[in-house]
Amino acid sequence: MGRVPASFLGELFRVSSAPGVISFAGGLPGSAHIDLPGLFEATETVFAEEGRAALQYTTTDGYLPLREFIAGRYRRRLGLPARSEEIQIVNGSQQCLDLVAKIFLDPGDAVVMERPGYLGAIEAFSLYEPTFHGIPLMSGGPDLDVLARVVREHAPKFFYGIPNSQNPSGRTYSEEARRGVAAILEGTGTVFYEDDAFGDLFFDGRPRPPVKRYLPDQGIMSGSFSKIVAPGMRIGWIYAPEPILREFNVAKQAADLHSNFLCQMILHRYLLANDLDAHVARVAAVYGRQCQLMCDLLDDLMPAGASHTTPEGGMFLTVDLPHGASAMDVFHGGVREGVAVLPGVPFYVDGGGDDVIRLNFSAVGEEEIEEGVRRLARVVRR
Amino acid sequence: MGRVPASFLGELFRVSSAPGVISFAGGLPGSAHIDLPGLFEATETVFAEEGRAALQYTTTDGYLPLREFIAGRYRRRLGLPARSEEIQIVNGSQQCLDLVAKIFLDPGDAVVMERPGYLGAIEAFSLYEPTFHGIPLMSGGPDLDVLARVVREHAPKFFYGIPNSQNPSGRTYSEEARRGVAAILEGTGTVFYEDDAFGDLFFDGRPRPPVKRYLPDQGIMSGSFSKIVAPGMRIGWIYAPEPILREFNVAKQAADLHSNFLCQMILHRYLLANDLDAHVARVAAVYGRQCQLMCDLLDDLMPAGASHTTPEGGMFLTVDLPHGASAMDVFHGGVREGVAVLPGVPFYVDGGGDDVIRLNFSAVGEEEIEEGVRRLARVVRR
Repeated sequence: MGRVPASFLGELFRVSSAPGVISFAGGLPGSAHIDLPGLFEATETVFAEEGRAALQYTTTDGYLPLREFIAGRYRRRLGLPARSEEIQIVNGSQQCLDLVAKIFLDPGDAVVMERPGYLGAIEAFSLYEPTFHGIPLMSGGPDLDVLARVVREHAPKFFYGIPNSQNPSGRTYSEEARRGVAAILEGTGTVFYEDDAFGDLFFDGRPRPPVKRYLPDQGIMSGSFSKIVAPGMRIGWIYAPEPILREFNVAKQAADLHSNFLCQMILHRYLLANDLDAHVARVAAVYGRQCQLMCDLLDDLMPAGASHTTPEGGMFLTVDLPHGASAMDVFHGGVREGVAVLPGVPFYVDGGGDDVIRLNFSAVGEEEIEEGVRRLARVVRR
Repeated sequence: MGRVPASFLGELFRVSSAPGVISFAGGLPGSAHIDLPGLFEATETVFAEEGRAALQYTTTDGYLPLREFIAGRYRRRLGLPARSEEIQIVNGSQQCLDLVAKIFLDPGDAVVMERPGYLGAIEAFSLYEPTFHGIPLMSGGPDLDVLARVVREHAPKFFYGIPNSQNPSGRTYSEEARRGVAAILEGTGTVFYEDDAFGDLFFDGRPRPPVKRYLPDQGIMSGSFSKIVAPGMRIGWIYAPEPILREFNVAKQAADLHSNFLCQMILHRYLLANDLDAHVARVAAVYGRQCQLMCDLLDDLMPAGASHTTPEGGMFLTVDLPHGASAMDVFHGGVREGVAVLPGVPFYVDGGGDDVIRLNFSAVGEEEIEEGVRRLARVVRR
């Protein structure tokens, strides 16, 4: 535990929820998109039709009809030959991070991360004391030359990546990069752990082919209803080859027996009664407009030397600050000016990141984006 | 992961749910005691009054009003000076097992367990590769001479015990044993991890003083709504000194960010609107009658040489089989005869247990207990 990086998330939560602060620092989906009436109707149905069974213990793998729904959606949307036996329900995809690390890692084992990488993953993996290897994440995907060298020299247990609208950068792998990652890993002992939290949230509504399509036996995918239905239920899943899933299941049972059964049933009823694809398309379109507005304002207002990524989907982008500006200074200055951002340092497992900040555009309306970017530009100029 | 004992729980779940089988093997509270209308009313209130906030992300420590309720109940029922800052919500008390092990244990560290011990704890701790030391659990509590020697010689990180109606044995520590455990541990580096899953379920309705009362700064307690309200919501808690809780919080955040927020709110509303103490007293009285019936039938029907524990509360008892009988044979014979029991071997971290079976009396009605013990006695006689 002593080697865990100090957690920024709790601190940020406090700063970001102070009155008058416009927060680009969080990672919340927009509350307005949570379908409260639809979820209540599903809840009524579960209480009426399932009764006490929904409130009892159940099996570790999760509610079978929900797992069948998830497997069916992989087949239909992404052309993956998923079966319910390859799906296990977890407490949001964060729990996959912990349990995958638990079954794969002994202290000192090599793990490959994107650079910058997802903070929640860095925190979860750190508890298992691996050696991190950062692969630069560029606009089209990870640097394949560096990846090939690290895989060859360090035989990592897995490469954890977010090919779709990555957190924090908002970047998406090109199809060429997906094939390239698969080609490098194929036949090695390295698994690709494909976190697909944002694959539903492409602004153009078009799914991208998962790396697992090109690497079926070495590919683990995780997904979550947090970003597309409601985070508070903490229902996510892992999709993995059965030999991996068997070990994962033992770890899940030891961790908490099973995920909340009531909410698994509510979600399943909700998904039967509502068109998830249409709902997600509406949400993604809103996020797309918010992202576009934020990008336009950054272009207009930020000082020369600043640049930003241009996401095709998801909830985040990163800003490279002008030469000499410090992300921690911008963070502290932002708190005083009433705008919260996430400084980049904790995303870099091997140093760096003090010239980068992450901005969230999903949890803020257009007026907040306008005013928040204005405040941010003032802070950066100073 | 390779060192994890093969899981009996999944296997047992399949055997026990086969048609026609009377199961004494499970660990379910009686479904009839789940207050479906009360929980639905609480759910309606949460949807109406909290709205989308109940379905968003929240803080890792859990819903403050629920933590205040739990702290208040410790103060009122058990005379412990609990504050909400010392309470953290988890996914059932099983998650405490995983996270306490995660923050305390490096491979090879010594852990003290009761002998027999709780299977879920053995499975959870095993993933962290400790060295287990079993302390014989007798009718009045653990063998204090053995405990003192193990603490002196092995400096264990913690002693995990269930002083109230232990799982599997149903045994309860005497007050003398509680003070004795505290006296041995006080001032050492060994924490007492007091799993209090069953402290509400004493048949006489009288709370017993927790060990933590005598060992405030070295005492961790875990509790759960699974046995007293509903297991399917997976809401439990840890009550620990703040320095321990801070590390626990980091581990919880890495594990799954936070527990299901909707169900935390539903539970809290339910607890405000209903008298938990009265509900629990009714449940415990029913379990007491079921336990008494099972004990009487075992006395009448089991062959000479068999004996059983006589619980004061909880959901389980153990039977010592007559000399020469094997618990695994009784398990397999029981499957053929239509009665499922839990063989004792996995409860013994250092060998033994093949002359012991665990029986559950909470999830079975009186007719099932009558017929099930008859079948079991036939198997044991054979």
